[in-house]
Amino acid sequence: MTQSTSTALQSVIWAGEHLDLLDQRLLPEEIVYLPLVTVEDVWEAIRHLKVRGAPAIGISAAYGVVLGGRNSETIEQWLEAVKAASAHLATSRPTAVNLFWALDRMRAAADRIVESGAPLEAAKRALLDEAIAIQSEDEETNRLIGEHALSLFEDGMGVLTHCNAGGLATAKYGTALAPFYLAQERGISLKVFADETRPVLQGARLTAFELQQAGVDVTLICDNMAGMVMNKGWVNAVIVGTDRVAANGDVANKIGTYSVAVLAKAHGIPFYVACPLSTIDLNTPSGDLIPIEERGAEEITEGFGKRTAPVGVKVFNPAFDVTPHEYVTAIITEKGIVQAPFDVNLKKLFEQGETTDADL
Amino acid sequence: MTQSTSTALQSVIWAGEHLDLLDQRLLPEEIVYLPLVTVEDVWEAIRHLKVRGAPAIGISAAYGVVLGGRNSETIEQWLEAVKAASAHLATSRPTAVNLFWALDRMRAAADRIVESGAPLEAAKRALLDEAIAIQSEDEETNRLIGEHALSLFEDGMGVLTHCNAGGLATAKYGTALAPFYLAQERGISLKVFADETRPVLQGARLTAFELQQAGVDVTLICDNMAGMVMNKGWVNAVIVGTDRVAANGDVANKIGTYSVAVLAKAHGIPFYVACPLSTIDLNTPSGDLIPIEERGAEEITEGFGKRTAPVGVKVFNPAFDVTPHEYVTAIITEKGIVQAPFDVNLKKLFEQGETTDADL
Repeated sequence: MTQSTSTALQSVIWAGEHLDLLDQRLLPEEIVYLPLVTVEDVWEAIRHLKVRGAPAIGISAAYGVVLGGRNSETIEQWLEAVKAASAHLATSRPTAVNLFWALDRMRAAADRIVESGAPLEAAKRALLDEAIAIQSEDEETNRLIGEHALSLFEDGMGVLTHCNAGGLATAKYGTALAPFYLAQERGISLKVFADETRPVLQGARLTAFELQQAGVDVTLICDNMAGMVMNKGWVNAVIVGTDRVAANGDVANKIGTYSVAVLAKAHGIPFYVACPLSTIDLNTPSGDLIPIEERGAEEITEGFGKRTAPVGVKVFNPAFDVTPHEYVTAIITEKGIVQAPFDVNLKKLFEQGETTDADL
Repeated sequence: MTQSTSTALQSVIWAGEHLDLLDQRLLPEEIVYLPLVTVEDVWEAIRHLKVRGAPAIGISAAYGVVLGGRNSETIEQWLEAVKAASAHLATSRPTAVNLFWALDRMRAAADRIVESGAPLEAAKRALLDEAIAIQSEDEETNRLIGEHALSLFEDGMGVLTHCNAGGLATAKYGTALAPFYLAQERGISLKVFADETRPVLQGARLTAFELQQAGVDVTLICDNMAGMVMNKGWVNAVIVGTDRVAANGDVANKIGTYSVAVLAKAHGIPFYVACPLSTIDLNTPSGDLIPIEERGAEEITEGFGKRTAPVGVKVFNPAFDVTPHEYVTAIITEKGIVQAPFDVNLKKLFEQGETTDADL
């Protein structure tokens, strides 16, 4: 096995004077980076889903704020421009929590910078540093998740994943896909099976794509083939991302995750969930309290650019499902690996505060 | 609940002087019946997949043989034309076992008719009767399967099915879908969940379509939603068709069936397989001896005219999987319902020969 460097595509690249953003709507057919020069460019990109994934959106917005103050000629003008950019960008996607978090942080940084009495050019540089910090902290979080996850895998193992919790959605590495990138960087061979993930096909369009780009050994399957692939003994572990983990360890994630978890348990295969601490919501006691969005029928009936089901047919199209914690072998965070009992151990994870990483 | 008559579409209709064939390639967007007047018309229809499903192909071919002798003016000419038609139709789809079976039966009938000394017009009529018999025997087989299956269901139940073992593939009713048509005819309300069945979407394009046409309450879901729907308590039984049942009760069927069976077992839901006796192969001791065809990657990567996965990505695309008999609650045939131990009870089913239906 040869040591190789991960050549994973990055979705957001600061290019010195502007932002280069990978247009995710064109994947996997075309790899196009859009040069974003103005706040309006960034607003448009977020609004029109050219960038997806909460961390990637937050990072893009942070750089958007930097672009807003780029041409200011006084420190007063600059602060005003930065705040206007932040307010405007907040309207680009009103439901993206990570977007608001990043904008708040940039605004607070700008205030601090002005209070410190920094001159204009230093202020501009300091705000850029804040955006870069948001991006590199996200990358570091993911790298740590990847390290912990990789400690559970061995050379030659088969690992199945569902949907896309990958580098394209984050600064780098992603969450569930992070161990695959780290393994690739270190010459550890993992055989990844990617569920295509109907109806929106994030597994086919994004996971298979970004892993293939990085040179990871990835095999695309239809969701309904997961059972057969497990039964053949080709899968030694499952790893997925999550949108929200409840205090008891129940996991909300892309529709189909629950089926995969049940199949994994039936085949005696560990089922891992990878996420940053920010995804664990101790204020939600259990998964049945997580609202499940139902989406339009057309995602199922004409998702391939062509009608593939009869007009008017009744459709059930939940965007997410909840996997009860009994099916979860471990939750892998930047602070370590958490196992059952999750209600106790997730709480401990937050209480241990600034202590070093530990397996709980 | 109102009593309603099943208005299921029939795929093959003898129209007195010619055959009306439902062009299944155009479903579900267009319902077009092709008038087939000549042997060549029937050959083309079979060759170009306008008709699919082993029974429907056999029935179409039988009527094709009738059409072959239609214009003959002597009994000798007729017999020659019938045999030529039969030989030609056998070349339309060289792997279709049911096609050869139907053609053999028609040829043997023609020989018998000539030996009996029937005059020309009576001979033509008798051969048409043989084709009609093939069609109505298939319908009767399916009706019996449906009766037995329906005895397992109760008004108000939710039933999940995978792929298409429906009326379009047979003379009428289908196998796994037969109980739904019978229930509909009798005003028994069943709530059907149809897996879309990637990659070729037979569930979306055919099952959802034909059940919707018949007025059955059908809800289309993606394959990966089956687990969630079961977990919600909406599914009281699963019923599927099969391509081959081994002597030990292992069941080969469309890819994804195994995943559904494992999910059903995990949720304590019975998993039924519906098929005629002709599908049970006592010469195949177990399912691992059934060859599984792998099909082209493009079914997954660009299945409906649009690329949805990266070029060159590795793909695993088995057309079928095998569900071990431990997951099968019962096999439902025209001669009754068979339960474990399948190796003993399937054999008994054949040994009991001409006795009446019995639950084994």
